[in-house]
Amino acid sequence: MNGQMMQQPLLISTLLIHAERHHAAQEIVSRRVEGDIHRYTFRDLAARARQAANALRALGAQPGARIATLAWNGYRHMELYYAVSGSGSVLHTLNPRLHADQLSYIMDHAEDDILFFDLTFLPLVEAVVDRVQCKTFVALTDRAHMPVTKLPNLLCYEELLAGQSDSFAWPALDENSASSLCYTSGTTGNPKGVLYSQRSTVLHTYAAALPDALNCSASDVILPVVPMFHVNAWGLPYVACMVGAKLVFPGPALDGKSLHSLFESEQVTLSAGVPTVWQGLLAYVETNGLSFSSMRRTIIGGAACPPAMMKTFQDLFQVHVLHAWGMTELSPVGTVCSFKPVHRTMDKSAQEAVQSKQGRVVFGVDMKIVDDSGRELPWDGKASGELLVRGPWIVSRYFKDEGGDPLVDGWFPTGDVATIDANGFMQITDRAKDVIKSGGEWIGSIDIENIAMAHPGVAMAACIAAYHPKWDERPLLLVVAKPGQSLTREALLAFFDGKIAKWWTPDDVVFVDAIPLGATGKMLKHKLREMFREHRLPTV
Amino acid sequence: MNGQMMQQPLLISTLLIHAERHHAAQEIVSRRVEGDIHRYTFRDLAARARQAANALRALGAQPGARIATLAWNGYRHMELYYAVSGSGSVLHTLNPRLHADQLSYIMDHAEDDILFFDLTFLPLVEAVVDRVQCKTFVALTDRAHMPVTKLPNLLCYEELLAGQSDSFAWPALDENSASSLCYTSGTTGNPKGVLYSQRSTVLHTYAAALPDALNCSASDVILPVVPMFHVNAWGLPYVACMVGAKLVFPGPALDGKSLHSLFESEQVTLSAGVPTVWQGLLAYVETNGLSFSSMRRTIIGGAACPPAMMKTFQDLFQVHVLHAWGMTELSPVGTVCSFKPVHRTMDKSAQEAVQSKQGRVVFGVDMKIVDDSGRELPWDGKASGELLVRGPWIVSRYFKDEGGDPLVDGWFPTGDVATIDANGFMQITDRAKDVIKSGGEWIGSIDIENIAMAHPGVAMAACIAAYHPKWDERPLLLVVAKPGQSLTREALLAFFDGKIAKWWTPDDVVFVDAIPLGATGKMLKHKLREMFREHRLPTV
Repeated sequence: MNGQMMQQPLLISTLLIHAERHHAAQEIVSRRVEGDIHRYTFRDLAARARQAANALRALGAQPGARIATLAWNGYRHMELYYAVSGSGSVLHTLNPRLHADQLSYIMDHAEDDILFFDLTFLPLVEAVVDRVQCKTFVALTDRAHMPVTKLPNLLCYEELLAGQSDSFAWPALDENSASSLCYTSGTTGNPKGVLYSQRSTVLHTYAAALPDALNCSASDVILPVVPMFHVNAWGLPYVACMVGAKLVFPGPALDGKSLHSLFESEQVTLSAGVPTVWQGLLAYVETNGLSFSSMRRTIIGGAACPPAMMKTFQDLFQVHVLHAWGMTELSPVGTVCSFKPVHRTMDKSAQEAVQSKQGRVVFGVDMKIVDDSGRELPWDGKASGELLVRGPWIVSRYFKDEGGDPLVDGWFPTGDVATIDANGFMQITDRAKDVIKSGGEWIGSIDIENIAMAHPGVAMAACIAAYHPKWDERPLLLVVAKPGQSLTREALLAFFDGKIAKWWTPDDVVFVDAIPLGATGKMLKHKLREMFREHRLPTV
Repeated sequence: MNGQMMQQPLLISTLLIHAERHHAAQEIVSRRVEGDIHRYTFRDLAARARQAANALRALGAQPGARIATLAWNGYRHMELYYAVSGSGSVLHTLNPRLHADQLSYIMDHAEDDILFFDLTFLPLVEAVVDRVQCKTFVALTDRAHMPVTKLPNLLCYEELLAGQSDSFAWPALDENSASSLCYTSGTTGNPKGVLYSQRSTVLHTYAAALPDALNCSASDVILPVVPMFHVNAWGLPYVACMVGAKLVFPGPALDGKSLHSLFESEQVTLSAGVPTVWQGLLAYVETNGLSFSSMRRTIIGGAACPPAMMKTFQDLFQVHVLHAWGMTELSPVGTVCSFKPVHRTMDKSAQEAVQSKQGRVVFGVDMKIVDDSGRELPWDGKASGELLVRGPWIVSRYFKDEGGDPLVDGWFPTGDVATIDANGFMQITDRAKDVIKSGGEWIGSIDIENIAMAHPGVAMAACIAAYHPKWDERPLLLVVAKPGQSLTREALLAFFDGKIAKWWTPDDVVFVDAIPLGATGKMLKHKLREMFREHRLPTV
């Protein structure tokens, strides 16, 4: 027997309809590629998204067709989020940090029909135009700013919109239909596409907005530094419409000065991004004796937040750090490190230790850790094993079944190695492929890197496994020193004393000029392992 | 083309599984019918709900079968919430304030197979046992407290559970299957059942927990005064499992002293109930010079919160009042009066005026107001018309199609008359059938009652339409005076001066000993209209 409540599909278009009806006057502020600040409301967004949906129809976009973007965080990108997914096509957000080879592979694998791009990325588009099947290109700008280009028949976004009515009836799609596509930046193998659905996106949005998750309300002013081309900016463009929050988009200007000025002028309360972005921001704010007058919380994910960065945010600037963990395959939010009551009475250092964890699942996601034979491990904060997750916004298969069936008994293996404590707080100790196997025991590289990063002379640190004749593998620490610092191997190794088990201390330190980073800012440890394959550890 | 995310049905059992895995140690505290305080954790709840599910199977409960409860807010009732709905049967919560005639009608209409009841309600169960088809009765107590009764084969809940394993695999139900049933206490016509689904309940839970809705987190201690037999205690038993909040159940003791002692001993942060309950609580707290040491917010719904009560909560006790509006047909949450940024800079009296509204929709619900011909009215805070709503947790048809198709073009007509302002804040001005039609213009009875209630000598007030030879209808105010107050008709009418449009002022005041209330505490205005049908208004 079925219940007798209204059957309404969970659709991305309903987020926009809600925002327009119930938060029409709320603002969206964008720093544009053209250089100026643009400002409009949810009412304008909704009208222009409908124009864009009509423009897509006029360009021949079919239901399910992949429509690609190569764009910064901005209002035009936001319009496409809703116009493309709302009208039944699939929004394919491309990562502009990819090499032209990878980009053309992904565009053709996805079979993108149309590409909308910001002017910044014209050279990249010109580099791929002759190598991809996609034949329709649209520059996200107005006629006055249209570039001189070798691209044939380049279309102008503002002209396309101007030619269209702002009346469009969002179709009543099946909630399981595909809404958007994002490729993982796998460090090995072909990139794989994660194909989100209308339903998975709306459910993820509900969960992400909850008080113990990202905690978003109409009183928030949200500046997503995390790019809209990177797992939908962690869902914030959807969350903002659901709760009626003001949105501030930084466009291409991600330097500390530009970000800080937006934080202050727009009175941002909540931001989100990877640690590397915050380094530039914090350095600028500290150097110039500035502060944050409105920011209350910052969500840090993508990589573990170095403890030193957490202390700077919290102690120096009274900005609460909310550690979160997710993946492209998770839409992306899996866990958020929101305190339970048991943590509120702890002393500060104990609280900071809790905050260094990736946290507990939001409702919808379940997780477990397993050993090599797949047996579930205890939640004691000590046992570490591969992290597996499941839930209605977690991938079941990759686009076109790339890589085969990824699931293990219905769970998605994340490739992360983690512990879970008795309160259900998960902590990533390593990537499964980065873990250091010393004499049959596992050493987590992330702990070691965090300690090294806390040293005032260290700008960046990576810990990898190096060959050892007795222990098979031992930790090798690669360090980029801060300019002007005289830092020695011995001083750095001594810095580990008392901070970590003796046998976890690296066997050696090598100073390097730079550490190679991937398209989403993650350290490419497989490259480092190749580079240091011949490194001989000192033998004691 | 479908997305490729995991297909996981939205099931009530997943709320319990989440609570057990991720908030196992969180507490549920209950004042029992037996008189003592009972205390256990989500881990215990989950184990006992599985025992109860096995007991239901042993009793022959079928998928879709209606399993009724007649019970206070308590842990055993909570166990049945999950055991019944989680195992695929339908939880039918009966209102013990109903007369035996109504109760037996509803039980047979629902075709209840089993009735679980608290000892308090034994006389009521004995009064209906010979008149209903239901043949299986279970007392929610242990062997030591089993009553002497004429009920044949009365079963003992604790014995049933003790005989069962706590191992039970929650079935993978269709998310659209029926989960629970609640009858509306219609003041006219037969009671009508609203049949919730697994999906509608989980979606409602997500929405209800959002920051701008009930704003619930693992740090909250929630005491639902609103009964679990009244629209699922506004969804709080589900919300608590979703977010891991501590629950405190007051059982049968709803007097001010009992409630206040639980608020304090359990450090309740959030409560919820109808205005009439708060009157007793506030009177007790004020009389005894007490305060609330932990309570931050109270959700008031079911009827408009009198402005005087709101001031007492906020100004005297620093408890923020969150006005909410819902209906049995809405699961029940429709709107919550959470400020937008525009309200935060207003002065206190302007804020209080906003707070007196029922507020804005939570995401999922949409609303509109229409005139007599069904045309949508503007959102100007002035135009008032019937309120219509739609959304995935709103009724589409009543159980067994009682009353026919209730919808109008896909919208549910609430029977409430309301305004909506430019910020999307809705305010109920009346029930459609209670509105006073004076010379073709509408007068809202609720505004008039609120003003009367603000008079220090008034205990309760009801405003109804009385026949008028010239204007068709004019407002007649019925008043219960506070004991020991000498209150005159003239003084009360003068009290309206400057507070309301002259032509809205009642034509007459009649002092009465009591105002008849229905089973959910609402004033029965149709009875009042009958009683005062012959009342002659003074003619000016």
